[in-house]
Amino acid sequence: MEKATHQATKEHNATLALKTIYHSDPLSRADIARATGLTRTTVSDIVAELLDQGLVTEVGPGPTAVGKPPILVQFDPGCRQLICVDLGGSEFRAALVNAQGAMLRTASLPVEDRKGEDALLLVFQLVETLWTQVTAPLLGIGVGTPGPVDPDRGVIRMAVNRGWEDLDLKGRLEARFKVPIHVANDSHVAALAECAYGGHGRSPSLVLIKAGEGIGSGIILKGRLYAGEGFSAGEIGHLCVERGGLPCSCGNAGCLETVASVPALLLAAGARARSNPGSALAKTLAARGATLEVLLERFEEGDPQARSLIQDLGTHLGVAAASLAGILNIHRIVLSGAPASFGQACLDAMAAEMRARILLEQGREMEVVASTLGPDIVLQGACALVLRKELNLP
Amino acid sequence: MEKATHQATKEHNATLALKTIYHSDPLSRADIARATGLTRTTVSDIVAELLDQGLVTEVGPGPTAVGKPPILVQFDPGCRQLICVDLGGSEFRAALVNAQGAMLRTASLPVEDRKGEDALLLVFQLVETLWTQVTAPLLGIGVGTPGPVDPDRGVIRMAVNRGWEDLDLKGRLEARFKVPIHVANDSHVAALAECAYGGHGRSPSLVLIKAGEGIGSGIILKGRLYAGEGFSAGEIGHLCVERGGLPCSCGNAGCLETVASVPALLLAAGARARSNPGSALAKTLAARGATLEVLLERFEEGDPQARSLIQDLGTHLGVAAASLAGILNIHRIVLSGAPASFGQACLDAMAAEMRARILLEQGREMEVVASTLGPDIVLQGACALVLRKELNLP
Repeated sequence: MEKATHQATKEHNATLALKTIYHSDPLSRADIARATGLTRTTVSDIVAELLDQGLVTEVGPGPTAVGKPPILVQFDPGCRQLICVDLGGSEFRAALVNAQGAMLRTASLPVEDRKGEDALLLVFQLVETLWTQVTAPLLGIGVGTPGPVDPDRGVIRMAVNRGWEDLDLKGRLEARFKVPIHVANDSHVAALAECAYGGHGRSPSLVLIKAGEGIGSGIILKGRLYAGEGFSAGEIGHLCVERGGLPCSCGNAGCLETVASVPALLLAAGARARSNPGSALAKTLAARGATLEVLLERFEEGDPQARSLIQDLGTHLGVAAASLAGILNIHRIVLSGAPASFGQACLDAMAAEMRARILLEQGREMEVVASTLGPDIVLQGACALVLRKELNLP
Repeated sequence: MEKATHQATKEHNATLALKTIYHSDPLSRADIARATGLTRTTVSDIVAELLDQGLVTEVGPGPTAVGKPPILVQFDPGCRQLICVDLGGSEFRAALVNAQGAMLRTASLPVEDRKGEDALLLVFQLVETLWTQVTAPLLGIGVGTPGPVDPDRGVIRMAVNRGWEDLDLKGRLEARFKVPIHVANDSHVAALAECAYGGHGRSPSLVLIKAGEGIGSGIILKGRLYAGEGFSAGEIGHLCVERGGLPCSCGNAGCLETVASVPALLLAAGARARSNPGSALAKTLAARGATLEVLLERFEEGDPQARSLIQDLGTHLGVAAASLAGILNIHRIVLSGAPASFGQACLDAMAAEMRARILLEQGREMEVVASTLGPDIVLQGACALVLRKELNLP
């Protein structure tokens, strides 16, 4: 516990006013005072400062019942730009966005088998592609990456696929680009995106499950990311769901990733096809290869084997999600990534398994929904991360 | 987000000073100013207020290098008393304690099969027993009870064994005793006790697992209780650990309580005895009945069947604890209640199972320890709850 100071009070109130402007249509200084409970004088001082910084603009007179019409102000989305980076999967992706997260430019580079310093150079190269296209003051660079990351120090503790261990990514990027850098785990920033842009209101509690090549989750408690003591809170990908199950890359066995990641799903599809080689699924996979697209197509055509595979996928996800819901007692579980593309069938199987594994009361209050944010969720989260750290927004 | 006020700043600083005095040997106003960063004038005003309230006393002059020796002040543990109540198990228990949690008087009443209003009358009767023995201003009454409880409203949402549903325990006790009442889930208050009195430093993160007739846990994040959206965070007793396992009182099957509660442990002991009727365990159970004491005695004498039962118990607890450790990424898991009395063998089995079920990195940083607080942990937690809510202590 630290002593409270007038300076802290002042900063708190400035943030409060900025948030009010950011989330609102154009409004007058009097409107801001009413919405925040701050005095007119305090609001005028804060708005003057925000105009100076270029974060807000005056947009002309507003309506009035009597007397001189008040000048309205609004947040200027073009006042700053950010570079957002997603280091997951088989390609590194980046976007140049404005201060409200709208994408202006994107870029991507295939990672192939790059590791260590080579993989880091690829990150530099990717950022430089967008760097030349920046047309407003750059607020900073935000990065979502696999592995546990200390979000204050920006150090990646371990990212097995990239061969990174205790990599000071923040330091390396700062030295090169001389702008504020913020780095966090990719599932954690995806949860920040869901919190900021998922339509869950101002300070929601939710768990965002991100499933694809790997599986992870991010926990939002009353609008704030909960990272955990070792920065790996929500690590469900390596939570055991089948004791004595398949060996996992992490060194244990039966982890959720061994049964519910995209590679595991495709392996299971192959096994089903082999056990019933005359089936439509087997023929399609043989002709076109075992890909997520092919499986999704068979699923949407009502193929019973494909539907059964997705039922199992949902059930597996439900085992880990039950632990999330039971322990955290957070009502809203949001699914993003490949499994979400199978829609309600997957969500229903997940919810059914969860309800069989937690207190009835908890099950009744819980809901499992698909994220509306799509494949750019980590980029959007990296944007939300920088806005939070630099401007206390959104 | 609300506006910050000077009044809030003032209250914050008063709490900061009181905490400093509470946790310290006698100290001067200058010592308090140094420790808190507050000005001498602010500290003098705060201390004058605390002396008025009788929370601190002046204890005479302290040492000085030069000039007039400063007057030292200290927290007065006898300045207030509290009544703490534990509504768990087969008896209701209560204690009269001082403002530092030292027990002055205790009382208990058997619950037998009382339910609903009858059980509530027993709570009244129990509190009245201690009420007549109060010898200082009463800060309030704190209650730990099974079932999810909204700790702000003090309403028990559901306590199956007591037949309570949406019982406004806070309101009923307030109407009768006219003092501040605070009610929370018993595992949650046990975690508060562990946080306040378990020797884990000022603002620890920990999970306290409370196992006995039932099983629950309480989550402390940086010194604060995390209750969950439906007030049932940490509900591991009804987390499924064996899909298709034994039916549970909650309506599901295979819950942790069906394999790792005390009744489940004694049932398992009986089954072992029947499968090997000539064994020492079987003979002892037949002669003296299947009780926890008998099992503990056999265990301590090195009985292989008893040791194997405890190994299994630790393993079962480890399954649920792995979910806690993996999802929350909290390093310290503290076990209290009956299983803890089996000591290191149970803790080791638990830790081994946890490590096989979470990321290696998480497993390395984690520790499983037994609580040092003993069977009064819920009473101590109820005391910590009142001190927190009424004085922002400890």
